[in-house]
This record gives sequence, C-alpha cells and structure tokens, in this order.
Amino acid sequence: AGAEVCPQNGKAVMSLKKNLFFFVCQGTRDYNPKQMAIREKVFNTIISCFKRHGAETIDTPVFELKETLTGKYGEDSKLIYDLKDQGGELLSLRYDLTVPFARYLAMNKITNIKRYHIAKVYRRDNPAMTRGRYREFYQCDFDIAGQYDAMIPDAECLKIVHEILSELDLGDFRIKVNDRRILDGMFAVCGVPDDKFRTICSTVDKLDKMPWEDVKKEMVNEKGLSEEAADQIGEYVSMQGGMDLAERLLQDHKMSQSKQACAGLSDIKLLFSFLQLFQVTDKVVFDLSLARGLDYYTGIIYEAVLTQAGVAAVSNEAQNGANAEESVSVGSVAGGGRYDGLVGMFDPKGRKVPCVGVSIGIERIFSIMEQKAEVMSEKVRTTEVQVMVASAQKNLLEERLRLVTELWNAGIKAEVMYKKNPKLLSQLQHCEESGIPLVAILGEQELKDGVVKLRVVATREEIDIARTDLTSEIRRRTSEA
Amino acid sequence: AGAEVCPQNGKAVMSLKKNLFFFVCQGTRDYNPKQMAIREKVFNTIISCFKRHGAETIDTPVFELKETLTGKYGEDSKLIYDLKDQGGELLSLRYDLTVPFARYLAMNKITNIKRYHIAKVYRRDNPAMTRGRYREFYQCDFDIAGQYDAMIPDAECLKIVHEILSELDLGDFRIKVNDRRILDGMFAVCGVPDDKFRTICSTVDKLDKMPWEDVKKEMVNEKGLSEEAADQIGEYVSMQGGMDLAERLLQDHKMSQSKQACAGLSDIKLLFSFLQLFQVTDKVVFDLSLARGLDYYTGIIYEAVLTQAGVAAVSNEAQNGANAEESVSVGSVAGGGRYDGLVGMFDPKGRKVPCVGVSIGIERIFSIMEQKAEVMSEKVRTTEVQVMVASAQKNLLEERLRLVTELWNAGIKAEVMYKKNPKLLSQLQHCEESGIPLVAILGEQELKDGVVKLRVVATREEIDIARTDLTSEIRRRTSEA
Repeated sequence: AGAEVCPQNGKAVMSLKKNLFFFVCQGTRDYNPKQMAIREKVFNTIISCFKRHGAETIDTPVFELKETLTGKYGEDSKLIYDLKDQGGELLSLRYDLTVPFARYLAMNKITNIKRYHIAKVYRRDNPAMTRGRYREFYQCDFDIAGQYDAMIPDAECLKIVHEILSELDLGDFRIKVNDRRILDGMFAVCGVPDDKFRTICSTVDKLDKMPWEDVKKEMVNEKGLSEEAADQIGEYVSMQGGMDLAERLLQDHKMSQSKQACAGLSDIKLLFSFLQLFQVTDKVVFDLSLARGLDYYTGIIYEAVLTQAGVAAVSNEAQNGANAEESVSVGSVAGGGRYDGLVGMFDPKGRKVPCVGVSIGIERIFSIMEQKAEVMSEKVRTTEVQVMVASAQKNLLEERLRLVTELWNAGIKAEVMYKKNPKLLSQLQHCEESGIPLVAILGEQELKDGVVKLRVVATREEIDIARTDLTSEIRRRTSEA
Repeated sequence: AGAEVCPQNGKAVMSLKKNLFFFVCQGTRDYNPKQMAIREKVFNTIISCFKRHGAETIDTPVFELKETLTGKYGEDSKLIYDLKDQGGELLSLRYDLTVPFARYLAMNKITNIKRYHIAKVYRRDNPAMTRGRYREFYQCDFDIAGQYDAMIPDAECLKIVHEILSELDLGDFRIKVNDRRILDGMFAVCGVPDDKFRTICSTVDKLDKMPWEDVKKEMVNEKGLSEEAADQIGEYVSMQGGMDLAERLLQDHKMSQSKQACAGLSDIKLLFSFLQLFQVTDKVVFDLSLARGLDYYTGIIYEAVLTQAGVAAVSNEAQNGANAEESVSVGSVAGGGRYDGLVGMFDPKGRKVPCVGVSIGIERIFSIMEQKAEVMSEKVRTTEVQVMVASAQKNLLEERLRLVTELWNAGIKAEVMYKKNPKLLSQLQHCEESGIPLVAILGEQELKDGVVKLRVVATREEIDIARTDLTSEIRRRTSEA
C-alpha cells in the first residue's frame, strides 16, 4: 500500500509523528487552557492596576506600513517580519507597541493621553523557547503622553511597576533608576568623545551580564577609549543609592561641570521626593550602571529585576542553554523610560509630544507563574463552573437539561454531560478532575419532592435543597470563587 | 528652503496631510479608547456567557505554516496573507480560527474539549470599511469537540447564541436552522446530479440576497439544471417552520425517499425538543433555504439574523456603497454548524473528532453598538476612574499625591493632575469631560480638620468626610459602577 502519507502536506507520516512541532512555526506556540487560565489571572491583575490609575486603552493593527517601522530600531530592523508583496502596500508585522503608539498620536494629533496596550509583537529572532523567548510574544505597555510638570508621570510609572510586581507576588524585586542625561554628562566629564557616547553606553548596558573588568576591556580594546576615561567611568557606574547619592553627585567636582548631568540629578531628587509620597522608595535604587538598549530614551530610564532565589533557579537552568549571556536577564521583568522625541518623528512638522512609559515583561511573568504552579503542583482550574447537573438514574436527560437551563438563566455557571444516560461515577469524576465544587443531583424521588440533592465534591456531603432555593444556595456556597 | 518633507518617509508633507490614512494599511484601523470601551463591554458579555457554559479558552499563533491553511478554504485561498520568505518556514496569517483549532486538536490528540477563542484573523479582501468589513478583524468562536449523544451540544450552541444576542440587546433576532444532509437529500430527490450538489448549494445560499426568480435563472442558465428540478427545489426552499415542518417532511413522499434527508429531519426534531427544554424555540426557525458557504459542514447549520428596524437603517446606508449584494447580510450576526471531518484532515491516521461550533459576528456587533452610542449620543466612558483628587489652593501637590496614594493603595480608581498648581476649574472640567463622578478636594482647612471635601460632580453637592472614612464613602457612592 506504500508509505502512509499525511493528508495535509503529503509528507510521510513517521517523520510527522516524531516531530509534532512540525505543525507550528518555529518560535511560536499554542497556549493550552491551563496556560490561558494563568495568563488571564496575570492580565487581570495588571489591567486592574492600569485602570486604577485611570488609563484608557487603544488597539492598533498587527501590521504597519513597512516605512513606519523603518529607521526606528537600529540594527534590530533585521528582525522585522515583512509580509509578502501580494500587491498593494508593503507591510510589516509590528515589532513593539511603542512605535505604533507614537504613530497613532501623531496621526490623530493627540497631545494628551494615558493609555495601556496589551498585544502581541513579532521578531524574527533566534527562538530560545526553553528560556521563554518566542518570535510571537505579548507586550504590555503603559504610557503617559503630554506636557506636564517634571517627574510626576515618571513617578507614577514606577508606582505602577511597584503595585503590579507586589500584587503578582513574584518574590522580592528592585527597581533600578537612572537618567540618560546623567549618563551622557558622565561620559562627557570622563572624557569620552561625543561620537562615542552611544557605543560606550551600550557597553555600560552589559554590566548586568559581565564583570567590570570585561566591560572595561571592551571599552578600551574594542572601542578605543583611553584607560583613564574607562577607569573614571568605572568609579561612577559602581555607585548605587537613593536621593542622597543624587545630592552627593550634584556636589561632585567633576559631575557638577555637566549641565546635562545636573539637570538629570535634580530630576532624580525630585523623582525620589514623589516616590516617597507614593510609598515605594523601599524598592527603588538610583543605579548609575543602568543604561538600557533603546536609542530613543531622552530622560529617566528604569528597569525592575526580581532578586529572589525562586527566580535564580529559573535563571540557572537557563544558563545551561547555549546563550548564557541573555539568560541572566531573566530577572528583568519591567522596563521603560522617557522618550520625548519619538512622536515628533511621525509629525509632518516635527511637533513633539513628551512621553514616559513602562513595559511589563509579561512573557517572563507567565513563565515564572507557570513554573510556580508546576513546582507547587497547584491545581489550575481552566473553567469557572460552579455546579454540575447530574443524575444517578436513567432517562433523566430532559430533567437535567431543564434544570441546567434554570441555572444558566439565573447566571450560574453550570455544566451537564452530553449523554443520555451517563454514569454517576463518570459525572463525579469529571467534577474532581476539573475542580467543579458542587453537583446538583436529580432522581425520581427528588423530582417528586421538588428538591435537588446538592453534593459538595470536596467533602462528599449531600443535602436536599428545595428547588426554588437552589440558585441562591449555589451562589452562597461559591461566593468566594 | 524647498518643499517640507516628512521625516518618516521623505514624501512631501502636503500629500501627507491630505491623506492621513496613508499612515495605516488599507483595510485596517486603530481602535480609539471609545471604541475599545464598547469592545470591552461586548467581549465581557460574550465571555461571561461562554464561561457560564463551562468553556475553556486557548490561543494559537497569528501565523500558521502555509501548508496548514492550504486546501482548506477553496477559492478563498487567494485571500490568505503570506509572510515574505526571509529564510525558514513559509508562513501565512490565519484566515479563521476553525482551521487552527482543528490543527491544535489533531496535534495534541485532544478528543474532548469545549473552548472559546477570540482573536484577530486576516483576509486580503477588498476592504469595505464603511460597511464594517476589514482586512484585520476579530473572530469570536465557541466550539464543542467530542463524540456525544446526538444534538445535545448542537442545541447548546443555539442556546448560547440566544443568550448572547438577548443580553447584548441588539433588537429582535431570528436563528435559522437547517442541515446539510437535508439539503443533499433534497437535491437528490429533486433530480440534481451528484456532481452538481455543491454548486447548486452555493446558489441556494444566495436566497437571502436574491429573489427566487434570479436564483432559479442561475440554476438553469448558468449551472445547467433542468427547469423541473429547479422548480421542485423552489418549492422546498420556500418552507419555514418548526418541529412540525420536520415531521411533515418526514412524511413527504419525495423527501422520505432520501435516507440522508430523513436522518437530518429526525435530528432537527430532536434538536427542537432540546431547544424547548432550553426555552429558546421562540427565535429558532427551521428554514430550508439556509445553505451557508463553507464546504466543511457535515450536519446541522445555523445563522442568526437581526430583524429590527434599527439594523435595517444600517443596512440601507450600506446599500449606498458599491457592493449592495454584500451589505444586505449586515443582519447576520452569528453562524455555525457541525463539521465532523475537519480534524481528521490533520491527523496522520485520519482519526475524526466530531465538532460543532458557532462564530459570533463580533465586528458587526461592534459597528451596531458604536452606531447606537452615536445615535443616542450616549456618553461612553473610556476610564473607570471613581474620584479625582483636586485642590483649590496652591502648593498642595504633595498633599494631593499623598491622598491619591492612600486611595490607590485601598484599591480605589483615582486620578490626580500632573501639575504643581492646577486650577480648580480645569480639574472639575476634566471630571465632567471624562465622566468621573466624584472629586476629593483638599485645602489648608480640610488638612487641619482631618477631612476631605467630597464633591458629587453631577449635583455639585459638597460634603466634608473624615479622611479615615473616605475610601468607604467613595466605595459606597460608586458601588453601582
């Protein structure tokens, strides 16, 4: 009969069975109901926080005109997915949510908005799926656009990170804060030539992955910086503190020579004064080594990292992978900063709209939550069903359907088996497996008496409830859910 | 100085300003906060219904391997968006959610699931945006997969359509029901040659857009059917009714000669008996003219249409567009049916998983809801902020931030203006504009007295509340929200 062949693609079946991933594109994945339940819980926490802070939400198309994305991501532009030219415009899949946001503001001439946007973005990266890196992944952005008094919206972004990470209960965390103007001022006073600011900045950005010695070597050997300048930078980037550090640096004989640095340092002081009022200084550190990769930041920048053992374990496991450099940053779960120039790039007259925002590293948070559920062998419910309508006797399908209709119409989440005569045991088993807490059991006797036998799955307790009281009784018993 | 040029693309600015749609791809759109608020409300209603019926949810990638989609959509395959070949696998954007669902079931060997999936799909169609047709749009699917006793899950799908359309309050509606086996049986007994079943079926599908005379002409002149056969079909497809009609046709001397038709008719009877128990027969009509386009249906099919004047208006407006044929079906807001063969196409051994499902026409529902909000000049709130923390006096920024922190920490949705010294009037105006119901006003006197002046925006009533009671008072006054 010849080799069996897959009707879908004509390939031999054996290879297909061995490699089921053949069915989905490399670097993408399906989410199963359990993953979706975890995802929904995380989203709810985050969205509640955004709404508590008065944010609206918008949505933009998954593809943008290719030219909208061109020239916004520097070297990473090679990671953009293009659509095939099938006639019409040239299109690309969005790479992040920030550029579409800036395009949206410019196009609609919006000068004030506080919005969140949760959506998938696409990067033709080397997928490292075991480390939670995918080609399709969610971004979860909160941004405040508008001309306001200094540091108030910036501080609110940090307050939001603090609230979200606390509520998600991911373990201890720290939010590092710095300012692009402080970095640039520091480079200037340390004697870095103007044209090397950017490349030296990206070397500083590696400090969370490499020891200082290696960073210095890169500066001196690869980027041609003088050893003296590198050493001076080395002194500064080892500094961490709070408002006191900002004050001390404002008095620093070298740093104080840079106007830019002073402006940044004054703003850091102001920021900390607002963070005190917001009661979040316990987690925030002014850290001169924080640089962040993106070019478009113009002021304050920040990054939140998890500092606990639970995450270290994830991180260690990841280091067994090929690319240890990247896995270390598994600890990073949020980041952002001020970008006052991006919207102007989309405006015909270059009119600027100052923006500050934060992106929650939601995929990493999903991974951690999934792992936590796994480790604690937590039973993750994938439905919210409150009650199963069941029967121990035959020929009661109609009665079961009648009862489940009553429950649905009363807003109760209820299920019934799609069988004429299911066994009681299989109905109860289904409840155990999917965590349904109650069973409403019907029999000839119950129908005669106008009652329903309500069984509590966990305790096996059974009580007769008058049919008229059933919905309120179910609501009472599942109100904590 | 030469013509002003857009920094984004180097094109002259004038043409840009004239045509802002230049910025987004044809046939796609941004959703603004007002549209998102309406969308969220619709989603919440629909998802609540799916959850009430015990559904889980899954997600699949936005792109599938090109070969997964190949050969599933017949002629419409030309509407599939392909990604550019940038190395690696050939990918396409998903065209619907049903094929990815079938692929997911086969790949994971899942034989039982009740799931919903709400996500965007992509079609390179001629966009008709004024008629609510886009190249990127949401689908909202609920499906039940598994081998069960006949017509129980099928009936639940109709119950769900009934619940959703009732709750969304879109006006009166009707759910038409038919069965592919009845259609095929009818064609057979009317003398349609086997190889013409499919093409005649797609002509019958036009009956909701064309009068019978034109449909008949197409059958006879274009498709070469005998006039006698066409007339016999004409008699059947004019029939509408309920369980009684199914019973009558089971006695019909011609129809009863087809085994297939009899199987379909018996199932329609069974379906109606379940629909009676579900209390939804008021809206359901057995309509022999319902055919539905998709090839993969194997049993029951259904479609919900809005029947009220409000929608007729939308429909009329749409008819002013170029393509009147399509606009008529604006009334259709849900559709689906049984497809028992699709999953088997993805299984190496062809193992079948019977499925029945329904797709809610969510984009049409959005359009109608948006239009309704417009017509009734409804004020759509885009945030859920309960209270604005304000001040009438200068130099109280710190006190405002302290208070808003108290409120946020207590879970109250609160806002504060990002200004050192905002005017009271502008703070109150912001509340009026964005529908914030309460203002918590701080002044020197209130701080001394340990109170906050709570102002009700609608009535301008103001009362002093002890600071310790503020959160509970705000909660009490906004609990209906």
